[in-house]
Amino acid sequence: MPSGTVFGSRRLRSTPYTPRVEAIGVESYTVYNHMMLPMVYTTLEQHYHHLKRHVQIWDVAVERQVEIKGKDALKLVTLLCARDVSKPTPGRGYYTAICDHTGALLNDPIALCLAEDHWWLSIADSDLLFWVLGVVYGLGLDVQVSEPDVSPLAIQGPKAEDLVAEVMGETVRDLKYFRFKTINFLGMDMVVQRSGWSKQGGFEIYMPKFEKGLELWDAFWEAGRNDTYQLEAGAPNHIERMEGGLLSYGNDLNRGDTPLECDLAKFTHLDRDTDFIGKEALLRQREQGIEKKMMGLIMEGAPTSVLSHPYDVMVGGQKVGFVTSACYSPDMDANIGFAFLAIEHANVGCEVTVMAPEGPLKSRVTTLPFVTQ
Amino acid sequence: MPSGTVFGSRRLRSTPYTPRVEAIGVESYTVYNHMMLPMVYTTLEQHYHHLKRHVQIWDVAVERQVEIKGKDALKLVTLLCARDVSKPTPGRGYYTAICDHTGALLNDPIALCLAEDHWWLSIADSDLLFWVLGVVYGLGLDVQVSEPDVSPLAIQGPKAEDLVAEVMGETVRDLKYFRFKTINFLGMDMVVQRSGWSKQGGFEIYMPKFEKGLELWDAFWEAGRNDTYQLEAGAPNHIERMEGGLLSYGNDLNRGDTPLECDLAKFTHLDRDTDFIGKEALLRQREQGIEKKMMGLIMEGAPTSVLSHPYDVMVGGQKVGFVTSACYSPDMDANIGFAFLAIEHANVGCEVTVMAPEGPLKSRVTTLPFVTQ
Repeated sequence: MPSGTVFGSRRLRSTPYTPRVEAIGVESYTVYNHMMLPMVYTTLEQHYHHLKRHVQIWDVAVERQVEIKGKDALKLVTLLCARDVSKPTPGRGYYTAICDHTGALLNDPIALCLAEDHWWLSIADSDLLFWVLGVVYGLGLDVQVSEPDVSPLAIQGPKAEDLVAEVMGETVRDLKYFRFKTINFLGMDMVVQRSGWSKQGGFEIYMPKFEKGLELWDAFWEAGRNDTYQLEAGAPNHIERMEGGLLSYGNDLNRGDTPLECDLAKFTHLDRDTDFIGKEALLRQREQGIEKKMMGLIMEGAPTSVLSHPYDVMVGGQKVGFVTSACYSPDMDANIGFAFLAIEHANVGCEVTVMAPEGPLKSRVTTLPFVTQ
Repeated sequence: MPSGTVFGSRRLRSTPYTPRVEAIGVESYTVYNHMMLPMVYTTLEQHYHHLKRHVQIWDVAVERQVEIKGKDALKLVTLLCARDVSKPTPGRGYYTAICDHTGALLNDPIALCLAEDHWWLSIADSDLLFWVLGVVYGLGLDVQVSEPDVSPLAIQGPKAEDLVAEVMGETVRDLKYFRFKTINFLGMDMVVQRSGWSKQGGFEIYMPKFEKGLELWDAFWEAGRNDTYQLEAGAPNHIERMEGGLLSYGNDLNRGDTPLECDLAKFTHLDRDTDFIGKEALLRQREQGIEKKMMGLIMEGAPTSVLSHPYDVMVGGQKVGFVTSACYSPDMDANIGFAFLAIEHANVGCEVTVMAPEGPLKSRVTTLPFVTQ
C-alpha cells in the first residue's frame, strides 16, 4: 500500500458529492477516471459487514458515461461491443467487454440503451472516450460522442429497494436487474437502474446536473439516517466484491488480457452474424485454446492485506500465474484471491503456492464467484 | 485539497522507483496515467527553493510512452500532431498538441523521433494510446502501437548537467534542448534527453527495464549525496512550473480547449501542406477568432493555496473566465495564476476579480511565463 496523502489538483476532479464526503470525514480515496473515488470512511471490514445488513450511499460519480448519439449509433455500439447488442431493448443495460483489434481488453462498461440511436457506455477506469473518438474518426461515422454531465450515485445493500422506493417512488420496485427507467425527481429527469458494484442489491441513479448533486445526496441522507435503514456512507467494497467475483478493470483485467480468459467469456458472442472489433483475433484464440484463465484461490495463513502489485503463483518452483486481487473474507474466514493461472493449473482443487510479501502461502484453486446470493 | 490517504491497488501502478520513494518517506502522491506520482517529500516551498539552487532526482515514470513503429509510422505521427513533424530529425523531441477532429486537445506530448519509422509520444495524463489505437484501426494503417517498458527518471536543477555528466559520461553535455542520444549504462541502452518539466535545466532518462530501475536511482543517489551536489528527491514543482509558464494537461488544458487558445498556438502549424487531425476545425477557429485565451494573473491578498477546482474570474459582476492553477510564488512575493479569459479581457494590464475561497482577490492580467531564465 502506498503511504502518504493525495496531492489535490483540478486534474483529479471532485464530484458533485465531494462536499458531503469530506464533511463525513473520508479516510482514503482512490483516483478513477481522473476523478476522486472515496473508498473508506471507517474501515473496509466495518463497511463490509454494514453493506450486507443495511443500506449505503456511494459516491460513484467516477462511473463516467461515453455518450453516443446519432444515425450510426447502433452500428458503432454493435462494432465496439463483444456482446451482441445489435437488437437492443431500450431501458436495458448490457455488461460487455470492449476490445481492440487484437482482442485486448480496453474496458468493461455497462452499455445502456436509452434508444437505438442513443447510448451511454458507463465505463471502468480507462479513457474509453478516446478509443471511441478514434474509431469514429477513422471510419467516418455519423455520431456525436461526448462525456455528458452525468454523475452516478449508488444506493446499495439489502434495504436499498425500500429506501429508494420511499425517496423516489414505488415504481422502482418493478425494475429487473440491469433495467432502468427515467424518473423525475428534484426537478431532474434521472435514469434509475437496478445495478451497482455489489452483490447486495440496489440502484444506480444517473444524476444529470453537477450543481444539484447535494440535493440528491441529502434526500437519501435525510430519509435513511434512522433505526429502520441505518444508512451509512460507503463505497464499492473490496472484500464484498471479491466474494461476489466482480472483476475490476486495471486490477484484475487490462490490456494484457482477453475476455475469453475471464468471466467475460459468457458475454462475448463469437458466433453472431455481426462483426465487432477483436472478433477475428478472439475466434483464433478460441480455436487455439486460451493459455491462461482467471480463477479463484483460497489461501492459507494469516489474513492477507489488499495487494498493490501482483503476487507470483508457483508450482514446483515454476511461475504458473499471478494474483491480481486478494483479501481476507471475514464471513468465509479465509484469504481469497483472484489469479490468472496457466491453463493446465486452472482446475478446481489444484494446489499452488502464492508468493505473498509475508511468505509463501499454500493455496487451492476454486471457481468464481466465491459466494452466490 | 482532498483530505485522506491513497487507497492502494494494482490499478494505481507502482513505478520502478517506488521502493526508494517510500523509503525516503514521501508525504503525498498524485495519480497520473494510472500510476503513482510522488509529489511532496518535505514541503512544496522547500522543494522549490532547493530545485532552483541544486539538483533533484524525480520519479516521473508516469510519463508513459506510446510507441509507434512500422511502415506507416511517419504518416500516422504527421496526422496526429498539430506541429509539423513531417520532416523529422532523429534524436529530437517535439512538444506538440494532439487534437480530435474538432480541435479539442487530447494530450500535449513530446514526440521523440527515434527513427522515421519509430516514435515515442511521451504523454501527459490521458490514455492517448486509446486514441492512437482507434485511429489506426479506423484507417487501417500498418503500424504497431504499444506502451513499452520505459520509465523516465528526471535529474533537474542547475547542477543537473554536472551530475549527469559525472554519472553517465561527458557526452551528455553536447545535447541541445529537447535533443537526445542513446547511452549504454548499467548494461542498458537508455535514451537520455535534455528536457524535463522545470525551467531549471536537466535531463530525462528513459529507463527501459522495470526491474533495473533501482540501480539507476542508486547510481545518482550515491554520486549526488554530498556537499557539492546536495541532491534531494523532488518532483515536478507546482510553484516553479507556474513561474515558468508550463501548462499541465488536465489542470490548465483539457478537451474543452484548443491549442490556439493557449501557449500551444506557436507549435500548431496550420499553414503547412500536410493534413493533421483537427486542422480544418482550427483553421475555422483562426478565421473566426478565438473567444478565450490563457493568460497569467497577479492576484492581491494573502498567499493562496493550490486549487483543486477552477475559481471564477469576474469583471463588473459578470463571469469572464476561470483560474486553472494558482499558487504563491516566494521569489516573486505574489500570488500567481493561470486563467482562461474572454478575449476582450485577455490583455496585459486588465483588472479582474478572482473569486477565491478566501474571498474576492483584485487581480491584474499579465503574459506567460511569469519568469524567464
